[in-house]
Amino acid sequence: MRKGILFVISGPSGAGKGTVLKEVFKTVTDLEYSVSATTRAPRNQEKEGVNYFFKTREEFDKMVKNGDMLEYIEKFGNKYGTIKSYIESALERGRDIILEIETLGAEQVRKAGLNPVYIFLTPSSVTELIRRLKSRNTETVDWQQRRVEIGRDELQCAYNYDYLVINDDLQKAVTALIAIIRAERQKVAVNIDKIQQIIDK
Amino acid sequence: MRKGILFVISGPSGAGKGTVLKEVFKTVTDLEYSVSATTRAPRNQEKEGVNYFFKTREEFDKMVKNGDMLEYIEKFGNKYGTIKSYIESALERGRDIILEIETLGAEQVRKAGLNPVYIFLTPSSVTELIRRLKSRNTETVDWQQRRVEIGRDELQCAYNYDYLVINDDLQKAVTALIAIIRAERQKVAVNIDKIQQIIDK
Repeated sequence: MRKGILFVISGPSGAGKGTVLKEVFKTVTDLEYSVSATTRAPRNQEKEGVNYFFKTREEFDKMVKNGDMLEYIEKFGNKYGTIKSYIESALERGRDIILEIETLGAEQVRKAGLNPVYIFLTPSSVTELIRRLKSRNTETVDWQQRRVEIGRDELQCAYNYDYLVINDDLQKAVTALIAIIRAERQKVAVNIDKIQQIIDK
Repeated sequence: MRKGILFVISGPSGAGKGTVLKEVFKTVTDLEYSVSATTRAPRNQEKEGVNYFFKTREEFDKMVKNGDMLEYIEKFGNKYGTIKSYIESALERGRDIILEIETLGAEQVRKAGLNPVYIFLTPSSVTELIRRLKSRNTETVDWQQRRVEIGRDELQCAYNYDYLVINDDLQKAVTALIAIIRAERQKVAVNIDKIQQIIDK
């Protein structure tokens, strides 16, 4: 059995990562979505292990200290992270898994030697990024402005990724992402066992 | 404007390269199919520059001598090859182009520094390869046997390719190949200009 493939999808807030992935999962069913750990309290119907792994601040900090977190960030006073053993276990079971994380988190993943496929999702221009962020009525003007500045910086990270997906048309972005997942599954490196099987049969 | 991407598709006779590509071209229209040069005489409706670039043996040999051929092989007493300047011109014009060639030819392409995407197409087993080759009534039994032996050797080349596509179901193979073409077009390396444009806009 081949090992699973780890996909890391990132990009600035407002790129539409969540929306694109929701559509991708309608078509690609044999793919896991990485559940994050968080120190934030559960909301409404949120379930442990489904929406998040809920941790106290002490538990979370201890995991970070012990090197149990593949990556983590702090946002709005809460911590969010990816539990390393959770990802490693999925990969060992041959499950492909997708990590939707912030660009800062993605940079941390690079150090873990898991050889992920890095996908950068972005709007087609900084102007469009600003428009999307400003249309979020849930945030203060200050936060929106700060996000735009962060977003502009984050775009520079794109050069370090494997793939660039521009999300100016949802369906096109979804098609591109599905193609990337499918193509990565055809890579010789993940099908080494199959070649020998073909020759032997 | 970005440079074009060169796709090299190869694999043993009987893998179904031609059939798969014919289907791919129905969906992916912004892709060129590389026309080969040959010393064989034109048949029926075959047109210069459409089906082949027809060359005399002298012309062909001179091109090989001058290093004008990206790759070439001899088959059934005729020579078949790919004219280097023809490929380079397509790539310079930003056209993606697909080369359907023999594994021996593909090995020659590696030396040219064009950085192609290598795709290996194969049946799901040597048994199936034999079945397909033996069902070709146009060939002598001796030839069929020879092809099977060659095919078995050619499968070893698969390890050196980027992608492996198993053609046991035509539609699945076509879907996989289309995904590979689409994914390669999303590579950051071919979209460097776009990242700067996003940041500048």
